[in-house]
Amino acid sequence: MLKENERIDDLQYKGLKIIQNPDMFCFGLDAVILSDFSKQIKPGSTVIDFGTGTGILPILLSKKTENCKFIGIEIQKEVAEMAKRSVLLNKLENQIEIVNDDINNLDKKIKVDAVVTNPPYKQKNTGDTNINETQLISRHEIKCTLENIAQMAARVLDTKGAIYMVHRPERLVQILEVFKKYKLETKEIRMVYPYVDKAPNLVLIKAVKDANPFLKIQKPLIVYKKNGEYTDEILEIYNRKQ
Amino acid sequence: MLKENERIDDLQYKGLKIIQNPDMFCFGLDAVILSDFSKQIKPGSTVIDFGTGTGILPILLSKKTENCKFIGIEIQKEVAEMAKRSVLLNKLENQIEIVNDDINNLDKKIKVDAVVTNPPYKQKNTGDTNINETQLISRHEIKCTLENIAQMAARVLDTKGAIYMVHRPERLVQILEVFKKYKLETKEIRMVYPYVDKAPNLVLIKAVKDANPFLKIQKPLIVYKKNGEYTDEILEIYNRKQ
Repeated sequence: MLKENERIDDLQYKGLKIIQNPDMFCFGLDAVILSDFSKQIKPGSTVIDFGTGTGILPILLSKKTENCKFIGIEIQKEVAEMAKRSVLLNKLENQIEIVNDDINNLDKKIKVDAVVTNPPYKQKNTGDTNINETQLISRHEIKCTLENIAQMAARVLDTKGAIYMVHRPERLVQILEVFKKYKLETKEIRMVYPYVDKAPNLVLIKAVKDANPFLKIQKPLIVYKKNGEYTDEILEIYNRKQ
Repeated sequence: MLKENERIDDLQYKGLKIIQNPDMFCFGLDAVILSDFSKQIKPGSTVIDFGTGTGILPILLSKKTENCKFIGIEIQKEVAEMAKRSVLLNKLENQIEIVNDDINNLDKKIKVDAVVTNPPYKQKNTGDTNINETQLISRHEIKCTLENIAQMAARVLDTKGAIYMVHRPERLVQILEVFKKYKLETKEIRMVYPYVDKAPNLVLIKAVKDANPFLKIQKPLIVYKKNGEYTDEILEIYNRKQ
């Protein structure tokens, strides 16, 4: 079940486990809060995860939603193969399908109710590039840009279908612009602040295809208390609330 | 100096006072936090306030900026005339000019370094319309829409000139869209949350004409502590910190 340098991590959520390779890429807080933000996906939905990586999003969402089916698409062969083993490890093969492909190859005939995505945050040729190729592709828009995501989401979503995304706040203007271009109307935004007196480092966005404009900005999500411990809401999301 | 139903309020800030008529429209927290947000305006700037109302923004900013000149433009004759008396009351007639006109009449030859505006928040024919005409014009986009503001700001601003605006969070998508249309690049956003666990009810936005895209979302501005008292930051803005 495990290859070299891989390990099994307990997600401490309804018995779920995940295979990760710390030399490649481990999931972070962003994936966990996105799964919490996306749990409003309606029962019985078909959901696609663009760039599923370890498969963390469909694996968590399989227990946070009701009767949903998931497709996790991942361009990196080795990573997709590892995600497949995590699906088997959790006996979720009837609920989650991992596909090793480029989202840009998605067929027009595929229609889903929701898209979730924790995409590369950084534009090509920006920031730290002194990392291995797997990390580079996961973090930088090398194989997949914001525009690819919006365009493909618009293609696979039915009218009133929703995309749930986590991204960096400095990209917000561009995100709203490109969503608008593909008729994905931004309906919810939630800012994620590491501390109550610090700038946000993540933003959660829900957009609905062909919807009428009406934006709801939610209450702030604060990650740490002043003493550096997780806030009650983060503990609840991690299912560690006492 | 005072007409019927008018009163003089002490702004508790460097001796400033303002004339208001509670039957018409009194300034609120939004104007005060916008003046704080806009205090980054460079010394020696010429600043125009679109829809100055009581004149609260130029009056506060006269003491929060250095060597700036202000034009406050106000479409409602009676309101503009009251603002003029507030300017005289504060002996600021050499620094602040109040003009009774429609911003849509602004001459192309007028060039300023900054625009500030606390515009009507609500679209025409929405929300409470059971209010008097002065309040209606101040709160609803009857005489002046978001698009008018962006268009006129772009007209009067020099390249790299900035617009500082307070508005409602639910209009954010539309604001960014219309700013983009007129080449006003959104550079700073600050969310204003009444409480740390509530949705924001105001948003502060700075956009710069012809600037390169790079957005900085600032730390949250929280208005009240859990016990309902103002937070330290609001007390500081109001200059009431012990």
